[in-house]
Amino acid sequence: MDADNGPVMSCEAEQESIRMAFVVEYDGTDFVGFQRQSNGRTVQASLEEAMTQLYHCPITVHGCSRTDSGVHAKHHVSHADVPFLIPEDKLPLAMNAILPPDVCVKQAHMVEKEFHARFGSCGKEYIYRIWNSSIRPAVDRKFVTHVPGVLDIERMRTAASILTGKHDFSAFCAQSSEPDKKINPVRTMDIIEVKTHPDSPLIEIRVTGKSFLYNMVRILAGTIVYAGQGKIDIESLEGILAGKDRRQAGKTMPAKGLMLEKVFYEGDPFIKREV
Amino acid sequence: MDADNGPVMSCEAEQESIRMAFVVEYDGTDFVGFQRQSNGRTVQASLEEAMTQLYHCPITVHGCSRTDSGVHAKHHVSHADVPFLIPEDKLPLAMNAILPPDVCVKQAHMVEKEFHARFGSCGKEYIYRIWNSSIRPAVDRKFVTHVPGVLDIERMRTAASILTGKHDFSAFCAQSSEPDKKINPVRTMDIIEVKTHPDSPLIEIRVTGKSFLYNMVRILAGTIVYAGQGKIDIESLEGILAGKDRRQAGKTMPAKGLMLEKVFYEGDPFIKREV
Repeated sequence: MDADNGPVMSCEAEQESIRMAFVVEYDGTDFVGFQRQSNGRTVQASLEEAMTQLYHCPITVHGCSRTDSGVHAKHHVSHADVPFLIPEDKLPLAMNAILPPDVCVKQAHMVEKEFHARFGSCGKEYIYRIWNSSIRPAVDRKFVTHVPGVLDIERMRTAASILTGKHDFSAFCAQSSEPDKKINPVRTMDIIEVKTHPDSPLIEIRVTGKSFLYNMVRILAGTIVYAGQGKIDIESLEGILAGKDRRQAGKTMPAKGLMLEKVFYEGDPFIKREV
Repeated sequence: MDADNGPVMSCEAEQESIRMAFVVEYDGTDFVGFQRQSNGRTVQASLEEAMTQLYHCPITVHGCSRTDSGVHAKHHVSHADVPFLIPEDKLPLAMNAILPPDVCVKQAHMVEKEFHARFGSCGKEYIYRIWNSSIRPAVDRKFVTHVPGVLDIERMRTAASILTGKHDFSAFCAQSSEPDKKINPVRTMDIIEVKTHPDSPLIEIRVTGKSFLYNMVRILAGTIVYAGQGKIDIESLEGILAGKDRRQAGKTMPAKGLMLEKVFYEGDPFIKREV
């Protein structure tokens, strides 16, 4: 906090705080993830520092998702309680003037006090991007994973369709840092689709669902890639789901190919309006 | 040159050298341009170092275009004379294993000794990318120029159509570092078009022509942006061309928004095949 910005007041002293929700975009390359931690730059810390400077008091930001180190977001949603109103159309500009170049606020909305960026979300859309060429990418290198060699797209699409729907995804979950915490491994993937592009080696695996297990999208992508490479048989996928053994599914694909594209809320005010 | 790679032979001692042409992609962010110079990293030096290592003798690379510091290329063409044949399909992979991550060789072709990457080119295509939103970009920030505020696309298109064709482009040329060198300011722009994208603030100004003056595409883009902002009247564009005064045209837009997209040659073997 810069002394020139005046004294730091405690937000807790405020009688009426206002809940603001905002849409954030970031290039995850140089972040150790969204959530504040001691071992490196985080998006949460960047947002909190900018808001603390703007509102002249400590602000805590609550994100919809932690996102791992190196994962990007085009549309991440957070909320925070603030002591006074900076208008919705001014807040993104004010924050973007303070935030580092690899993160920006795209929209801000005053929301009900019941709104919660994480617990209120009814779904997310991720895209995992693969560069399928013998030639590694230069311009796009930070946002795709290079997978040389032949990929059978039809086999990838068949694998995607088998994995779509409601399953016990224990085989598609990285070991938690809190192994004693009981997590329900049954999730529903509403869409898993494989998109190719004419004139480009880009392959996009789009995954939407209400919620996801740890590393789940990257393991789904790795399993679909293994299917395309013939390393996993299409016929064995049902067995991999039933076996609940992480070692039977494909590898966890690198973080840099993963982009959080959208977060959904009931009556969503966020995706309708781009400033 | 690493001593482990064997002794350095002089290529000049070779009786028969082979001319190779190659398509190169680079992220210009951390380069001071294509052409080798003493004050920073260059694409030419990166290519020459990789080739010198592969061919065990000093190799000189001749590029189709210098490109300024910070300008990117999806498809830049160079040629070099080499002492022995590394097959066309192997050379890109061998070079990419040595080159830094922000540059890659996409294709290599054995060409006639008369082929010259610069003098043999019959045209180039550039795209200048603008991010037209009050919100600055985070993910795309290194490949677009942020232009907030209203841009009148129809006025930009009218300006583009007036600038298309054969003109004396003296008003669209930065002062040369060699002012005594006589340069013909008459150039022909075959295409100047303004493309917008639904659901994105991206505006692309595509410019193709046989050859270009120094900083010409960036000044054309700046003039079209000024037309869109109302800073330059459409009616005054003919006069700006006729006046031949650099100060009357729009500003030179930042390098980072500019991408060399294609280089054309008669009977072009380069754009037909992507590895």
